[in-house]
Amino acid sequence: MALRTGDHSQAATNGLKEKVLTLDTMNPCVRKVEYAVRGPIVLRALELEQELRQGVKKPFTEVIRANIGDAQAMGQTPITFLRQVLALCVHPDLLNSPHFPDDAKRRAERILQACGGHSLGAYSISSGTQLIREDVARYIERRDGGIPADPNNIFLSTGASDAIVTLLKLLVAGEGGTRTGVLIPIPQYPLYSAALAELNAVQVDYYLDEERAWALDVAELRRALLQARDHCRPRALCIINPGNPTGQVQTRECIEAVIRFAFEEGLFLLADEVLAGAPAGRGRRAAARAPVTHPAVARPPVQVYQDNVYAEGSQFHSFKKVLTEMGPPYATRQELASFHSVSKGYMGECGFRGGYVEVVNMDAAVQQQMQKLRSVRLCPPTPGQVLLDVAVSPPAPSDPSFAQFQAELGLAPDMFFCLRLLEETGICVVPGSGFGQREGTYHFRMTILPPMEKLRPLLETLSQFHAKFTREYS
Amino acid sequence: MALRTGDHSQAATNGLKEKVLTLDTMNPCVRKVEYAVRGPIVLRALELEQELRQGVKKPFTEVIRANIGDAQAMGQTPITFLRQVLALCVHPDLLNSPHFPDDAKRRAERILQACGGHSLGAYSISSGTQLIREDVARYIERRDGGIPADPNNIFLSTGASDAIVTLLKLLVAGEGGTRTGVLIPIPQYPLYSAALAELNAVQVDYYLDEERAWALDVAELRRALLQARDHCRPRALCIINPGNPTGQVQTRECIEAVIRFAFEEGLFLLADEVLAGAPAGRGRRAAARAPVTHPAVARPPVQVYQDNVYAEGSQFHSFKKVLTEMGPPYATRQELASFHSVSKGYMGECGFRGGYVEVVNMDAAVQQQMQKLRSVRLCPPTPGQVLLDVAVSPPAPSDPSFAQFQAELGLAPDMFFCLRLLEETGICVVPGSGFGQREGTYHFRMTILPPMEKLRPLLETLSQFHAKFTREYS
Repeated sequence: MALRTGDHSQAATNGLKEKVLTLDTMNPCVRKVEYAVRGPIVLRALELEQELRQGVKKPFTEVIRANIGDAQAMGQTPITFLRQVLALCVHPDLLNSPHFPDDAKRRAERILQACGGHSLGAYSISSGTQLIREDVARYIERRDGGIPADPNNIFLSTGASDAIVTLLKLLVAGEGGTRTGVLIPIPQYPLYSAALAELNAVQVDYYLDEERAWALDVAELRRALLQARDHCRPRALCIINPGNPTGQVQTRECIEAVIRFAFEEGLFLLADEVLAGAPAGRGRRAAARAPVTHPAVARPPVQVYQDNVYAEGSQFHSFKKVLTEMGPPYATRQELASFHSVSKGYMGECGFRGGYVEVVNMDAAVQQQMQKLRSVRLCPPTPGQVLLDVAVSPPAPSDPSFAQFQAELGLAPDMFFCLRLLEETGICVVPGSGFGQREGTYHFRMTILPPMEKLRPLLETLSQFHAKFTREYS
Repeated sequence: MALRTGDHSQAATNGLKEKVLTLDTMNPCVRKVEYAVRGPIVLRALELEQELRQGVKKPFTEVIRANIGDAQAMGQTPITFLRQVLALCVHPDLLNSPHFPDDAKRRAERILQACGGHSLGAYSISSGTQLIREDVARYIERRDGGIPADPNNIFLSTGASDAIVTLLKLLVAGEGGTRTGVLIPIPQYPLYSAALAELNAVQVDYYLDEERAWALDVAELRRALLQARDHCRPRALCIINPGNPTGQVQTRECIEAVIRFAFEEGLFLLADEVLAGAPAGRGRRAAARAPVTHPAVARPPVQVYQDNVYAEGSQFHSFKKVLTEMGPPYATRQELASFHSVSKGYMGECGFRGGYVEVVNMDAAVQQQMQKLRSVRLCPPTPGQVLLDVAVSPPAPSDPSFAQFQAELGLAPDMFFCLRLLEETGICVVPGSGFGQREGTYHFRMTILPPMEKLRPLLETLSQFHAKFTREYS
């Protein structure tokens, strides 16, 4: 018998009323979402922390988060210059303080000039402050040896995740056998699987080759694509380079092969380049023809750790650079979106949620739709925009803050080990310098939270990494 | 003839290749999204700004954004105490500065203690920093006269929009005639229509009664619901109180009637209370039984403009308070989500994207799913979390910053007029004090960007508001 309004009411009074929203009635796509990085282990870790606070005795006194690439939570200190500029923007009274260097003040004033009401408290335009998008474009040009970047193709975002989800949203369409499929690497960063589940798109797995240091193989891409065409319409190919959590860096030849494959098969390319390390690190490869239009932003010849850590011959190449240098028809037709963020690299400013995407060869009408879609969320958080701006244009040698900025990028050996471990294996441990150690000795600290079946491979990975690290740097 | 891989490639080389992503192939739900607040007018305004910068002559020298509730872009200055605490958190070296008051330092230290690595650069947990959710819970308890609030039911978010979209995501399900319908007021804030279009949910309009100052009428809710049941499954009712863009404040009786209606009809209640004005403003109604567990956060007896502006008898009541006071079965069964943000009210800190949602009577398993869904986006931006924390717990009378904080909440008459105009009509103009004016006179400035057919009703609304304002405050 169907319930009418009166019956509903009666059932409710009798305590029989069902909730509106239950596991059975909620969005089935959300139920399918899995997100291991913050799954049950992390929820249990939270409970443990509360128990510890309440004085419950445990075999450990503190929970160490080895689950997520969160450098500052693990003791990495922020870069002073970034925080100085942001503090000045947040509280402009400090512009009168003698305790801030002039270049930080000039930067803050320049950014505030570009903000509505000269305040971070105003919304920016939806794609992000124009000036900051221009600075990002100049950074990309330096990174790519002078290949032009258009600020109108750059959208600032709330971390890279936000931009990735926006692109996936645009791409999903169709029903049943024509539903959009997206090729993603396995292992992958679980944002992709989670977002695809939420959008009810089809996740198409291609496997990285662990035997060849997690290299990407076009034959495997083709296998995955052909199999997927039986049950969905694959329309996008996602590449994570450098790999997350696998840390491999693709060769130029591999990138070219991937681009040819995407072009021939009609796939939109999504290049997740957030682990491409320190933007400044690529400054020394800047070509003389890079147009630098903002006098306040000089080309940075800063060298940071990213240049040192990758094995010889494994230089980072951006997908956009390779695509452009391949010439037509690839350079003029292949659709590409490249993502970056301030959470990784030398900044490690995860909590501020700054990031961007650059789109290349996107259909103009679709780009307008993307603009519209972004505008519904008003704007990315302004503090993350500020940090992004400083990250893509660090102090130049003539700037008062240059020396300190350089010095802060030097890493203690144990910090360097832990950062490499994190970048290459995804294992997050704590450098011994955070606890004090006898001079000339170096340690790290880790906890043993995961269950045995997860701990064993973790310890094996750690052992392999340690052997490799010792080989490389001794 | 179907194209095979080789043909694709040939077609491409001949320049015949279609883009992967075009208006025809993109997500059809995204195409349906409309977002008037940042639509074509705003895009044209951006172009105009660029032309002005390039020296093109126009009948005006500056574009004034009267399109969005962005107080600081319109000249409202930030509250010093909020920015001091945030600057201290961003750049903790300032904790040694004699130029910051002790209470701001204590606040910053307390917040940093609760952050991973004592840094805003670390991710917080996905639902937001535990300490800040506890402070928000205490604020809600003060607001509601001591009715308990559980920090575990509070999720911090990237502005209120983010939280609203999360709830809608959980609610959408079904296909065709069983697709989720959501009742929204007309006029509404266009986030709702945009998000529903994107999620392919069914927008069910109910009309506010302009003749009765945009009041909400349960008979009209029922009409809309019954009609909608022919083609969808209405599962949620969205209420915007105070109204946006209409500014009306619901009476307690009206809220009770809405709750009974939602309960009887099996609707999840979404209460958008972001225009509920200054959190501090309700402190003086705090009941003695509100449990205040954090010694650093005293109950604020601050009085702010919200208490003065609404017409007599139109006190703000939160849906949660009314729901709880109605007793069982409503208090124990009716599902509710209430949204708030730091963009509105006395803070006006739009750019920082701080906000929260409190869920009431949500099914425990669904709440876990919500937690999981939130975790995919890692965490809300930490600076917005900090501002939210300070906004919900402003300085107490014994604090050194109390006097200045109080003073900054006093508004010049023209600022007051403009804020009221904005809150009640959505028209954003600039107070004359921003340009200088003869003492004792008050002005505002507006531009005439919109086309004639939009300008006429705008000017009529303005004229009506002016008459009403003069009546009320003379």
